[in-house]
Amino acid sequence: MKIKATAFAPATVANVAAGFDVLGFAVAGIGDRVTIVRDEAVRGIVVDRIEGVVTELPTDPDRNTASVAAASLFAAEDERGGFRLSIEKGIALGSGMGGSAASAVAAVVAANALLPQPLAVEALLPHAAQGEAAASGAPHADNAAPCLLGGLTAIVAHEPLRAISIPTPAGLRYVLVRPDLRLDTREARAALPAELPLGIQVEQAQYLAGFLAGCFRGDTALIRAGMRDLIATPARSRLIPGCDEAFEAARSAGALGAGIAGAGPSLFAWVEGDGALAAIEQGMRAAFEARGLATEAWSGPIALGGAAVEAVG
Amino acid sequence: MKIKATAFAPATVANVAAGFDVLGFAVAGIGDRVTIVRDEAVRGIVVDRIEGVVTELPTDPDRNTASVAAASLFAAEDERGGFRLSIEKGIALGSGMGGSAASAVAAVVAANALLPQPLAVEALLPHAAQGEAAASGAPHADNAAPCLLGGLTAIVAHEPLRAISIPTPAGLRYVLVRPDLRLDTREARAALPAELPLGIQVEQAQYLAGFLAGCFRGDTALIRAGMRDLIATPARSRLIPGCDEAFEAARSAGALGAGIAGAGPSLFAWVEGDGALAAIEQGMRAAFEARGLATEAWSGPIALGGAAVEAVG
Repeated sequence: MKIKATAFAPATVANVAAGFDVLGFAVAGIGDRVTIVRDEAVRGIVVDRIEGVVTELPTDPDRNTASVAAASLFAAEDERGGFRLSIEKGIALGSGMGGSAASAVAAVVAANALLPQPLAVEALLPHAAQGEAAASGAPHADNAAPCLLGGLTAIVAHEPLRAISIPTPAGLRYVLVRPDLRLDTREARAALPAELPLGIQVEQAQYLAGFLAGCFRGDTALIRAGMRDLIATPARSRLIPGCDEAFEAARSAGALGAGIAGAGPSLFAWVEGDGALAAIEQGMRAAFEARGLATEAWSGPIALGGAAVEAVG
Repeated sequence: MKIKATAFAPATVANVAAGFDVLGFAVAGIGDRVTIVRDEAVRGIVVDRIEGVVTELPTDPDRNTASVAAASLFAAEDERGGFRLSIEKGIALGSGMGGSAASAVAAVVAANALLPQPLAVEALLPHAAQGEAAASGAPHADNAAPCLLGGLTAIVAHEPLRAISIPTPAGLRYVLVRPDLRLDTREARAALPAELPLGIQVEQAQYLAGFLAGCFRGDTALIRAGMRDLIATPARSRLIPGCDEAFEAARSAGALGAGIAGAGPSLFAWVEGDGALAAIEQGMRAAFEARGLATEAWSGPIALGGAAVEAVG
């Protein structure tokens, strides 16, 4: 019987292009780590320790996204042991970089490694989404899907929840810039319109179709034309100081497009090849820094692996 | 100098799956035919003759979809001759089978063949859309695109208007059933909601993403799961007697999905392979016939050619 498992899950960017609540991609080099240890002396899951860049998260196992996610999997697989869970947060709270999804995904991946017969990775998504619901109030999975599967993903159904991988051209790179500013996910969601004019839905669907076709065909001109969002971006950009200037800086430095990462305030851009990467990053950071905001940044290829077990035994 | 050209343009089905105003496909064996003849004795375009299944169309060249489309192309290419245009309608008025798009597309394809340097087929779409705007009041191109390009197409931008071809699995077949009932396109459009809840937009986008991914991957299970429409179908099915029963008949006979063709009242279904084709057609026709409506039906592979020049010289 496996006693202890540790899993790492990456930061992710959701609301990519016209894929509001649909498209997301995984980021390298930053994420959350969850360790789960069997302990017959406890009942259910005990949240032992939260350390790293965020510590003010609930340790109540019914409210912690990692323990809720692990408990959902254990319950579904009839695994009744007691467990201690600890979280090492690498992703800042309210950054738009999928921190709650990463904790939930790392927890289900670690929990899965402790099962006598671990499930296929795709089957873990609904449990991760349960964990996210504990944090956000609704089981959105557009961060959890790329976190689990890596690369670019699309949610294609929600009952039952299903995500698929979307191919991307090999030369595609992302830039992700986080301003030192915390945006409340609920506030960012409240900024969204409750209803959309039908014409906006149609135009957004046209961009989504073009963006996806560009990804499948490896046609960066189509991807560029489809990197538009008429729903979340117009509603949220005013909540983020320097947002429009950062978008403009990214595009004028050669980005295919830019957008708000999840609910913000982090911003991302996509670009073909490495040539313009540094200039895009510098331009986006400068837009925030002109508003007196310190920044961190990451960049790399789009098609990277998702969450992984780091140790089990 | 070319004196006379005749082009044929097929019937088409728009509003396919979750692609309201985005996705459409071409149908074989039925369409409109337009002949354009140079005549220096007339100025501009004269609509000479309209014959076939529809004759009550305007002959005023500023209001006829075929002449408006041809005039748009001639004006853009600085072609100043006089022309006589005649139309042979194969597609019933108000059937949802893209009759006005077919007339507009056949006209631009014939007109293009008369140019000293004909344009590439993709460049004709905006002119065909101008023609459609004369009929419907707005330049929707979701019928004109598959009519021109054949197969399944997606509109991916509207300024400038751009459509692309979407691949489909080789074994895919359509069934198209027309009840003998005329639905006014404007009335069908008035039945649509002016605004959509954000959650409906998201769900529709998820289905669209899955459907498109299924087409690119050749994954009929994904196509089946994505053959949903939360926008036009719920609003319009009550305008079409027997609609829900026809959908049910198609699905229970093995269809991947079914929907309203364009603004209706014709309905379509998609199915894998030829095995269930006859049963689906029979079930859908029976649903209409139970309401006292005579029917016509067509079926065939999805990936068929679009409009074509039949004669030029």
